[in-house]
Amino acid sequence: MERATTNWSPNTLWEEIRGGRFRRHTSGVCSGYAQANLVILPKLEALDFLIFCQRNPRPCPLLDVLEPGETTPPSSPGADIRTDLPGYRLFLDGELADERDQITDLWQNDWVSFLLGCSFTFEWALIGAGIPLRHVQEGKNVAMYNTGIACRPAGMFAGNMVVSMRPILASLIPQVVQICSRFPSVHGAPIHVGEPAALGIADLAAPDYGEAVAIECGELPVFWACGVTPQLVARHSRPPVMVTHAPGCMFVTEIPNQTLAR
Amino acid sequence: MERATTNWSPNTLWEEIRGGRFRRHTSGVCSGYAQANLVILPKLEALDFLIFCQRNPRPCPLLDVLEPGETTPPSSPGADIRTDLPGYRLFLDGELADERDQITDLWQNDWVSFLLGCSFTFEWALIGAGIPLRHVQEGKNVAMYNTGIACRPAGMFAGNMVVSMRPILASLIPQVVQICSRFPSVHGAPIHVGEPAALGIADLAAPDYGEAVAIECGELPVFWACGVTPQLVARHSRPPVMVTHAPGCMFVTEIPNQTLAR
Repeated sequence: MERATTNWSPNTLWEEIRGGRFRRHTSGVCSGYAQANLVILPKLEALDFLIFCQRNPRPCPLLDVLEPGETTPPSSPGADIRTDLPGYRLFLDGELADERDQITDLWQNDWVSFLLGCSFTFEWALIGAGIPLRHVQEGKNVAMYNTGIACRPAGMFAGNMVVSMRPILASLIPQVVQICSRFPSVHGAPIHVGEPAALGIADLAAPDYGEAVAIECGELPVFWACGVTPQLVARHSRPPVMVTHAPGCMFVTEIPNQTLAR
Repeated sequence: MERATTNWSPNTLWEEIRGGRFRRHTSGVCSGYAQANLVILPKLEALDFLIFCQRNPRPCPLLDVLEPGETTPPSSPGADIRTDLPGYRLFLDGELADERDQITDLWQNDWVSFLLGCSFTFEWALIGAGIPLRHVQEGKNVAMYNTGIACRPAGMFAGNMVVSMRPILASLIPQVVQICSRFPSVHGAPIHVGEPAALGIADLAAPDYGEAVAIECGELPVFWACGVTPQLVARHSRPPVMVTHAPGCMFVTEIPNQTLAR
């Protein structure tokens, strides 16, 4: 079963989701294809958010922006952004209001969809290079933390960055930076090594999202900018309506990970 | 005076050294030109050492190898490798036997000279990017340590790696790795971040070569493979005759640092 979903094409996954037969997180599904964070905003707020992404490319790297009302991502011609993710979240005035398995009945024809690069791509590159990742080995969602680092504001959008953390052996940290640097459209290089207090993180054992993992002897916590940042920014900036993917339930694109390497 | 030597051409420096008017370390001299570690071995040991360099490119990155008896580096047409460094060291059976200001009277026409890239080039790139380096700010020689990391042996040559250490702010470490990665011919990326014990370094305050610097709050010790490695390898492998530069008294090439960026 696990192996089967690993080898699915994105098109097969979309069909399974539409048919109600796939309702879990997308980690490890459609191996080799880039997965994406989803943010949907009405046209009125979309320009501000697009400028926000341009000013904050580490947490918000743009893979695709759909035109107002458009429901098929240019990068994934057979997909429908309203139905083809296994889970959606609706935020009203910045607060989580609902979790749903499709948004067709909510859809407005001035809505603008943003696909942001996802760490699954650089994790794929790291694992391919023989770098062990503890949360993957333990089948956990990666640990994520709110930080005290302010994003560069744009229009109505402002707020702090969310980071993901992976423990890395001291001797592997340079190689990890090198590998991830090749993937700027999926968060790219880490933003910080060691010293969680400098990011405003008080306790690594208590992540704000995802699950904690142990940091073993000889390892350091390494931090990446995270695609959950828009959800924290929304809580601060309170746009009237915003839709996102549910945690771990990403949009799987037809973009091969390899084509994102620079 | 300091500013004057900064702006010297390599050719001017070589003339000043030959005339006996320059007898100090070369840090900061001929700004923008790559400096090099020197190793000279008789032809009998040279092939083993060349293979050793090929197998250990991080501590021993080759900028230039001269043919047996050749005294002018291809990269620096006006220079004489026997006279144009401010200081030389003679090792006999792996032990330091003499320090000299030229080696013309020792020279044999089967001697092979190796020029190995030097950290001054990546330090130039880091400083140019606004990354502060404490040992430079304090006018000290960089702190260097023998490690427990075995180099890959080749023929008669075997021994452990020497590393240099620079304290770097946690938030700047990824950028430091990225910048240095562009310069593989001058040691390239760090080999290790934090965790000196994992390298077999017991006390950062007691370097084996150079001078200690403080590690301030929020900084981590970052370690690079070091061009002093051949001197430690010689002590272990005991070649009958080996000549090197004296610490800090590098050969200044006519290779612009920029041309080494990949």
